[in-house]
Amino acid sequence: MGRMEALKNRIYGLFRRARTQSEKLVFHFVRTLSEQREYTSHFKKVNIPFIISRMNKISENEDSKKRDHKELGPQLDLFAFSDAVGKGLPLLTPKGSVIRRELERFIVDEEIKRGYQHVYTPDIAKLDLYKKSGHYPHYKDSMYAPIEIDGDEFMLRPMTCPHHFELYLRRPWSYRELPIRYAELAKLYRYEQSGELMGLQRVRSFCLADAHIICKNEEEAVSEMGKALDLIEYANGVLGLKMGEYYHYRLSLGSRANSEKYYKNDAGWEKAEMLLRKLMKERGVDFVEAKDEAAFYGPKIDIQMKNANGKEDTVFTVQYDLCMPEKFNLTYIGEDGKEHRAFVVHRSSIGSIERTIAFLIEHYSGAFPLWLSPVQVAVLPLSEKFVDYTGKIFEKLKEENIRVEMTDADEPLGKRIRESEMQKIPYVLVVGEKEEKEGTVSIRHHSRGQEGEVSIEEFIKKIKKEIKDKVI
Amino acid sequence: MGRMEALKNRIYGLFRRARTQSEKLVFHFVRTLSEQREYTSHFKKVNIPFIISRMNKISENEDSKKRDHKELGPQLDLFAFSDAVGKGLPLLTPKGSVIRRELERFIVDEEIKRGYQHVYTPDIAKLDLYKKSGHYPHYKDSMYAPIEIDGDEFMLRPMTCPHHFELYLRRPWSYRELPIRYAELAKLYRYEQSGELMGLQRVRSFCLADAHIICKNEEEAVSEMGKALDLIEYANGVLGLKMGEYYHYRLSLGSRANSEKYYKNDAGWEKAEMLLRKLMKERGVDFVEAKDEAAFYGPKIDIQMKNANGKEDTVFTVQYDLCMPEKFNLTYIGEDGKEHRAFVVHRSSIGSIERTIAFLIEHYSGAFPLWLSPVQVAVLPLSEKFVDYTGKIFEKLKEENIRVEMTDADEPLGKRIRESEMQKIPYVLVVGEKEEKEGTVSIRHHSRGQEGEVSIEEFIKKIKKEIKDKVI
Repeated sequence: MGRMEALKNRIYGLFRRARTQSEKLVFHFVRTLSEQREYTSHFKKVNIPFIISRMNKISENEDSKKRDHKELGPQLDLFAFSDAVGKGLPLLTPKGSVIRRELERFIVDEEIKRGYQHVYTPDIAKLDLYKKSGHYPHYKDSMYAPIEIDGDEFMLRPMTCPHHFELYLRRPWSYRELPIRYAELAKLYRYEQSGELMGLQRVRSFCLADAHIICKNEEEAVSEMGKALDLIEYANGVLGLKMGEYYHYRLSLGSRANSEKYYKNDAGWEKAEMLLRKLMKERGVDFVEAKDEAAFYGPKIDIQMKNANGKEDTVFTVQYDLCMPEKFNLTYIGEDGKEHRAFVVHRSSIGSIERTIAFLIEHYSGAFPLWLSPVQVAVLPLSEKFVDYTGKIFEKLKEENIRVEMTDADEPLGKRIRESEMQKIPYVLVVGEKEEKEGTVSIRHHSRGQEGEVSIEEFIKKIKKEIKDKVI
Repeated sequence: MGRMEALKNRIYGLFRRARTQSEKLVFHFVRTLSEQREYTSHFKKVNIPFIISRMNKISENEDSKKRDHKELGPQLDLFAFSDAVGKGLPLLTPKGSVIRRELERFIVDEEIKRGYQHVYTPDIAKLDLYKKSGHYPHYKDSMYAPIEIDGDEFMLRPMTCPHHFELYLRRPWSYRELPIRYAELAKLYRYEQSGELMGLQRVRSFCLADAHIICKNEEEAVSEMGKALDLIEYANGVLGLKMGEYYHYRLSLGSRANSEKYYKNDAGWEKAEMLLRKLMKERGVDFVEAKDEAAFYGPKIDIQMKNANGKEDTVFTVQYDLCMPEKFNLTYIGEDGKEHRAFVVHRSSIGSIERTIAFLIEHYSGAFPLWLSPVQVAVLPLSEKFVDYTGKIFEKLKEENIRVEMTDADEPLGKRIRESEMQKIPYVLVVGEKEEKEGTVSIRHHSRGQEGEVSIEEFIKKIKKEIKDKVI
């Protein structure tokens, strides 16, 4: 055990003893070691400022390495790469796939509640489509080479927007039907250089929780942007990511001087940037402004996060579009019976699912909230004698759609408990004579420790509520 | 109204009157006009044999045209194609996407219950992977041209199996862990000639409910094939497709003479074909045998269906694999501590989601069971006066996650009811003075007609049960 480990153990010991004083505080501390500066004032109360100052200097590196999703992911068997498949193309294991599926269903259901219509559009399309949208000249370097099919060139899609516009164009629309909010879990393909690839953080194919909102006018577009930010803040809250602490807003502006990079429409840019700044001010949230960081088609509001290595990245984005409605001739019939030009908002809600999983692995150091945990409960028979009864508990939990694993009894209990803890399974139930006799289970929570005995029915009720409420 | 229409109306009238005699019979008749020969003997009882004989000759064509998913799909706004995106690449509208999402969640949940582990693997991989699997020489003509990335050639995947094998290969496995059942909603890409493309039935990119089961030995493989057939029969039952009536089994065999088409292992083929024949006989189901219809890697059991045009197609398949375990060196550690060769089963459960949607559109003539219906309930205010109260009902249903639409009151009620019927919305609720006063809704079912008045709570309870039970 290294010096740092020994020190950490001492600190953990101190904090465990301090638990009665402030259970919640300790919980936060264990979870977010690297954020401990935020809690310095609290820590003073428990009288260990000398430790804090040392921790400040040395813990950050060690801790961030431990939380690095590239290390933790394969360790917890969440994803794998294969040379035979190719670089930057992750294979999600059954466990990693649970997290993805839960995230996907969560965001799809939430978006539908908020008036989005989820669609499925193809992952490839003719090159001409991206020429029409203007993506091809701008994003050419991050697109893959075309595939020829019957004389046409097809591309792996780098963006979803032209697909949603084509869907919109299938019929005329009345002003009464707008805004139309098309959302999709869209697989996208972008070329990243070998050296840029990084675990699930930077990949060559990812699934974006994407949407395009077709609006009647600028006011509606800005109002929809506000609603998209509401959704992002809500989703971040559910995922346990607090504004200011884990993410901040960036208003990404264009540059009138750079007409090669940005669609030319000076007045449009001025107005859009003004509207977006106004929106952010009205929301009363902190934000930074960044010149020359807009999309080629308009300014945007980016949600910035830092990964375990401290590198800042845009994870979610809400964009105002000055150009696509014209390029695609997106219109609607107004109250006056005439055709009007529509306005478009692009947005991602929980961003690239792969990247979000990477963030969550690091944020929770692999100890996910119950609803996201690949295995939610481990049931351990105390010995061979209790395998049958433990099996019944296992089946009962399975019937309730709880993700449960049962160990054999042929390894020592201590070893099996340690293994469950290494896997960061939220609940471990050890089943022995007392439990069998009384029809109870003895609960051990991954971060909260022993939680006493309850009847199996009570336990099921308790964790089903915890899952439903997505308790962090 | 043409002669045929007039005749049909007369028949419908007769049958409606005959309802009291045999409601179920009429229901079947209206649903499956083209299958009416099956029911000829029943029809004789209601004394209209003269109609039957005429119907036999003329209804089939007209009816199958009406049920054709290529006509009905766009008519019900379920999917669209775009020249700008490309041929054979459907865009699912919000309504079509509801059907796909419901089917996907249904099959994923059901498979997980049955011990499958759902995974996500990339839709592209190095060409070498398909050379290794042997797909490349065999399926070359139906694969797209490679894309070069950093000097490697990548392919849009035509199959999932090598991806699942690579996932399996990430670590060693013990005999205790097998069978491993990897399932995926896998997007696949196959080149189909322009002339072969047909609506959602034959497309250039589709999502297969795919799985690969890695087994310890031949017996386990055959037993897993049986379980896969159980799942297929169950899923077909849920979807309302009866064995014998809507699908039949085909045992697709290889040909020892054709060593170019089939992997060379005569003894292996003989044994596998014998085992599969035995399995089918033990199930006690009818099946036909078809020479020279196997996969290149082994014999298979195909589930054959006819589309509205009468063309037979393989929709689901369960395959025995003689070759991949060797090519990929798929092994496990046996009870003896030694490495053993694994056995593999390939299977699709509800097949290509696109094709299954096409079948369901035709099977139900667009009038889907409640759980699959894009819009489950339409609420219609009798007049402007009842818009507020109707709005409350609308919100109440929405809160219960029921897919509901509300019409304005500015069009005549009759027209609005007809439109809801054209859209084949299962439940239409008309809300007027009586309903508002008594807190009830007056139910009109798409195929069953008027169903009386109940309280809104009762209605919600009733349809939530109907949705949960996936009533056909």
